[in-house]
Amino acid sequence: MKTRAAVALEAGKPLVIEEVDLEGPKAGEVLVEIKATGVCHTDAFTLSGADPEGLFPSILGHEGAGVVLEVGVGVTSVQPGDHVIPLYTPECRQCEYCLSGKTNLCQAVRATQGKGLMPDGTSRFSLNGRMLHHYMGCSTFANHTVLPEIALAKIDPDAPFDKVCYVGCGVTTGVGAVLYTAHVEPGANVVVFGLGGIGLNVIQGARLAGADMIVGVDLNPARREMAERFGMTHFVNPNEVEGDLVGHLVELTKGGADYSFECIGNVNVMRTALECCHKGWGVSTIIGVAGAGEEISTRPFQLVTGRKWQGTAFGGARGRTDVPKIVDWYMKGKIEIDPLITHVLPLERINEAFDLMHEGASIRTVVTF
Amino acid sequence: MKTRAAVALEAGKPLVIEEVDLEGPKAGEVLVEIKATGVCHTDAFTLSGADPEGLFPSILGHEGAGVVLEVGVGVTSVQPGDHVIPLYTPECRQCEYCLSGKTNLCQAVRATQGKGLMPDGTSRFSLNGRMLHHYMGCSTFANHTVLPEIALAKIDPDAPFDKVCYVGCGVTTGVGAVLYTAHVEPGANVVVFGLGGIGLNVIQGARLAGADMIVGVDLNPARREMAERFGMTHFVNPNEVEGDLVGHLVELTKGGADYSFECIGNVNVMRTALECCHKGWGVSTIIGVAGAGEEISTRPFQLVTGRKWQGTAFGGARGRTDVPKIVDWYMKGKIEIDPLITHVLPLERINEAFDLMHEGASIRTVVTF
Repeated sequence: MKTRAAVALEAGKPLVIEEVDLEGPKAGEVLVEIKATGVCHTDAFTLSGADPEGLFPSILGHEGAGVVLEVGVGVTSVQPGDHVIPLYTPECRQCEYCLSGKTNLCQAVRATQGKGLMPDGTSRFSLNGRMLHHYMGCSTFANHTVLPEIALAKIDPDAPFDKVCYVGCGVTTGVGAVLYTAHVEPGANVVVFGLGGIGLNVIQGARLAGADMIVGVDLNPARREMAERFGMTHFVNPNEVEGDLVGHLVELTKGGADYSFECIGNVNVMRTALECCHKGWGVSTIIGVAGAGEEISTRPFQLVTGRKWQGTAFGGARGRTDVPKIVDWYMKGKIEIDPLITHVLPLERINEAFDLMHEGASIRTVVTF
Repeated sequence: MKTRAAVALEAGKPLVIEEVDLEGPKAGEVLVEIKATGVCHTDAFTLSGADPEGLFPSILGHEGAGVVLEVGVGVTSVQPGDHVIPLYTPECRQCEYCLSGKTNLCQAVRATQGKGLMPDGTSRFSLNGRMLHHYMGCSTFANHTVLPEIALAKIDPDAPFDKVCYVGCGVTTGVGAVLYTAHVEPGANVVVFGLGGIGLNVIQGARLAGADMIVGVDLNPARREMAERFGMTHFVNPNEVEGDLVGHLVELTKGGADYSFECIGNVNVMRTALECCHKGWGVSTIIGVAGAGEEISTRPFQLVTGRKWQGTAFGGARGRTDVPKIVDWYMKGKIEIDPLITHVLPLERINEAFDLMHEGASIRTVVTF
């Protein structure tokens, strides 16, 4: 079949809207009509050429929502008409990782996904006879895409695509980091570094978890208002702190953060996030993605005195299990998404979504088909 | 009263055996006759002058066992005749730390302990009218010492002092790190860096926890035999590994360590210990104490892909609760101590214990009174 897609022909160039060829689903695969997709920093990172694993030409996008149109042989968990969110971290429920009960990093299709291919080692996409790579197993910048069955979360059919597509990455990454990776408990003190989209979702995750004090740290005072709406109780602008930021945060939290989250990708902030944790039990979770080759450091004394350093990917969420729940929480009003979707654009204007992101003008732009 | 003690008059000098003056126990304090004490690297570290918090003159020693002789006003948990192990990490069961249920780092007497004083801000020891500092709240290099009640674990009176004194630090640090900090579960793969006294106790802790594969890593092949006796299943000498040690360990453990332990205090080994952990869930625990100002580093990707970095002090053990259990395990043969006590010396020869340690000739030397 033919479908419309924003194609990344080469690194550093704008996406190009094309009619591309899409093969139907093979065994274990599902054809999905994408109704809406978010544009995420990770798409921009790959498009820029800075991603060492970036492949071109490809169809980017990994934060979508849509409807199942057709299923391949053997597919049992979804059927045509189901509303779904594509999962760049699938959940096969059979691999060593899924069965460990300790991680969400399902490895079932990892090798081929990393090569921009479907599990059988081929691509479903082509343009004028030239193969186009899949991206993060999703390629949601196409109006239609094919995914493995294990990479689809079946969601409430009443959920609006142009909102819950954001659950496909940002919302789950932030809210999940609090619930599934850090396991924040009621009464905890939480410090969140970076009040962009991920940070705001961490904040509402902390509110959902019943945290007492939710401290947001950001250099941009304009982010305070939205963060407070999402549950931030205290705002700290490092530029306004006299002396040591760690000391200030430890004093503010009366001993240090029970849980801290780094939502920026800055290795120096990652250190601060660890060191502002409470002696004895503070846990710091890295969400942000640092530049290639960058390293984090601290004195081991920080760990020997009881702080823990960890990270999270896709918020520790098991996609098929947890993503539908997060959509339900949105539908019940337990979490907010609408204020985070600051811009909606048609596919033809997708490059503007990248511009808005780079300008810092958007929290999230959603592209509709 | 008078008692015999090995006194550290100044940094870098041998200990001197003296008759010192000891005041009796005040309210909440206990007079203990020390029957045996281990000599630990930490004592040597402080005696060397390298410890920035070292105080002189002082009575070192923190790994003892003895008998309660007299209790101060208000002491209820021990009485004269009880056999006890002094705790450099006390357990008040009332401070924020004890009540958190998340840490063993009781802070009840920390401020004064760090100053070499009893909780009332004074010392019980003096020599010719000059105050001698307490050390780590214990000062077990004295035949008699005074401690806060909360710093005494009451143990099985049948346990031999010259063996279970080692539970006061080394045994608990190693075994406890496995059980109370890392929570190793049956079937886990464990990698232990450094097969000295702590490493051997980690190994037997892992055996006790039911680990499947227990890999020991040490440059000294002479340590292999004892480690195998304690439960090591695979020995790796980094000098004999071609190529990357991390890669070798990941291959050996079929994906990486579920749990790794650094028992040396080398920041480069700490990095290796983290990076040899299994993607998705591997937990690396730092036990060794690094040099002042040294830092650990890694790429944050190691954490974002599911590894956790943590540390432990006194094996995460709550002294009054867990130390008596560990003594019981020794008495029941669930853990071994005897082979680790390679030398026993009278107090007068305590300086030889330091020599044996520095020569690498001992695992543990115990001094008896």
